Amino acid sequence: MSPVKVFGHPMLTNVARVMLFLEEVGAEYELVPIDFVAGEHKRSQHVQLNPFAKMPGFQDGDLVLFESRAIAKYILRKYGGTAGLDLLGENSGIEELAVVDMWTEVEAQQYYPAISPVVFECIIIPFIIPGGGATPNRSVVDESLERLRGVLGIYEARLEKSSYLAGDSISFADLNHIPFTFYFMTTPYAKVFDEYPKVKAWWEMLMARPAVQRVCKHMPTEFKLGAQY
Amino acid sequence: MSPVKVFGHPMLTNVARVMLFLEEVGAEYELVPIDFVAGEHKRSQHVQLNPFAKMPGFQDGDLVLFESRAIAKYILRKYGGTAGLDLLGENSGIEELAVVDMWTEVEAQQYYPAISPVVFECIIIPFIIPGGGATPNRSVVDESLERLRGVLGIYEARLEKSSYLAGDSISFADLNHIPFTFYFMTTPYAKVFDEYPKVKAWWEMLMARPAVQRVCKHMPTEFKLGAQY
Repeated sequence: MSPVKVFGHPMLTNVARVMLFLEEVGAEYELVPIDFVAGEHKRSQHVQLNPFAKMPGFQDGDLVLFESRAIAKYILRKYGGTAGLDLLGENSGIEELAVVDMWTEVEAQQYYPAISPVVFECIIIPFIIPGGGATPNRSVVDESLERLRGVLGIYEARLEKSSYLAGDSISFADLNHIPFTFYFMTTPYAKVFDEYPKVKAWWEMLMARPAVQRVCKHMPTEFKLGAQY
Repeated sequence: MSPVKVFGHPMLTNVARVMLFLEEVGAEYELVPIDFVAGEHKRSQHVQLNPFAKMPGFQDGDLVLFESRAIAKYILRKYGGTAGLDLLGENSGIEELAVVDMWTEVEAQQYYPAISPVVFECIIIPFIIPGGGATPNRSVVDESLERLRGVLGIYEARLEKSSYLAGDSISFADLNHIPFTFYFMTTPYAKVFDEYPKVKAWWEMLMARPAVQRVCKHMPTEFKLGAQY
């Protein structure tokens, strides 16, 4: 029995993020399903793992963690060595490490706020409203797409200089883009990426990774409005 | 002349964050003022430092960085050793480091989204609208205060067990709370913190630090509606 347990549902982006790094490093883990439709994440057993009543919860022996980005870094530090990966850049110099940190923050602070409202409007809000009928707010979508184009333009310029965001090796920064971008690519606005050929090629390179494919197979690509999983 | 340059205005929270860690480690630096009211951050000279046209820009010799949290970590790694501080927890075990990362993410993902709308509504939006007259959106403020109370309740429980968020030593996670909380404390809603005595004591302990005081003296505590700095 693996000491590593992930508590949550793999269709949730933050659960997918944690699973992705476990798969990348080839660590054994157990996925403990949490029925969030039934509100199981708000019950005391889960809140003991994650006081914010969010998913995932994470346990490795006696260590309990929450916040998917922090969990992911822990996984890379504890189990990443055997996979020969240096996704955090910690085996390089502090300047290389700073560049990985910088593009990791860009994902969190610039990319996520730009792309996520489209995913919320087109997928998450219709999904969580029982009975369906919710239609995306057009002005929210348009505003987000404009913002996203601004970010993708900066990515395009960056990816003209290096294969990945933080340089010519894949890093934590690139892989953090997977969960939300995966869902964005199921919306009618996926073609926005075609305007940025370097970004599109980078995305396809990320999606071709076996670990990414193993995680994404748990993430639905078709949603029935208001029909929960 | 110091090789370290921070480009921005110290009243901006992300500029203040970078200055705070420079002050904590006692590193020499030069603050290069950027007149953001005149739009100087959007001009090509600044965009070469920060492609997102945001502040701060940061330079240390040949290294150019953006994203304040990544810059702050770089400062701690490069200059923190001499100050005898281990704010990132990198000199401890990977479990302690994970706990610092976790509370750092809590600040970014749970605390900031809860507290920042109050600061935006009460200070930033009135400040940037010329001529003043903008009044805070009451429902946005109320909703944020409710969310903030939820977060502060979790902090209170945590701070009953340890002096600081990540344990009994101050860390990167604690200090990242300074810039936005400083401005929140100038709003009429500062008294919310009185409901959480451990959190209040923690905040006062942070504010008593000489480095914090040196940075906060550049941050205004009174704003004239619509009157720019």
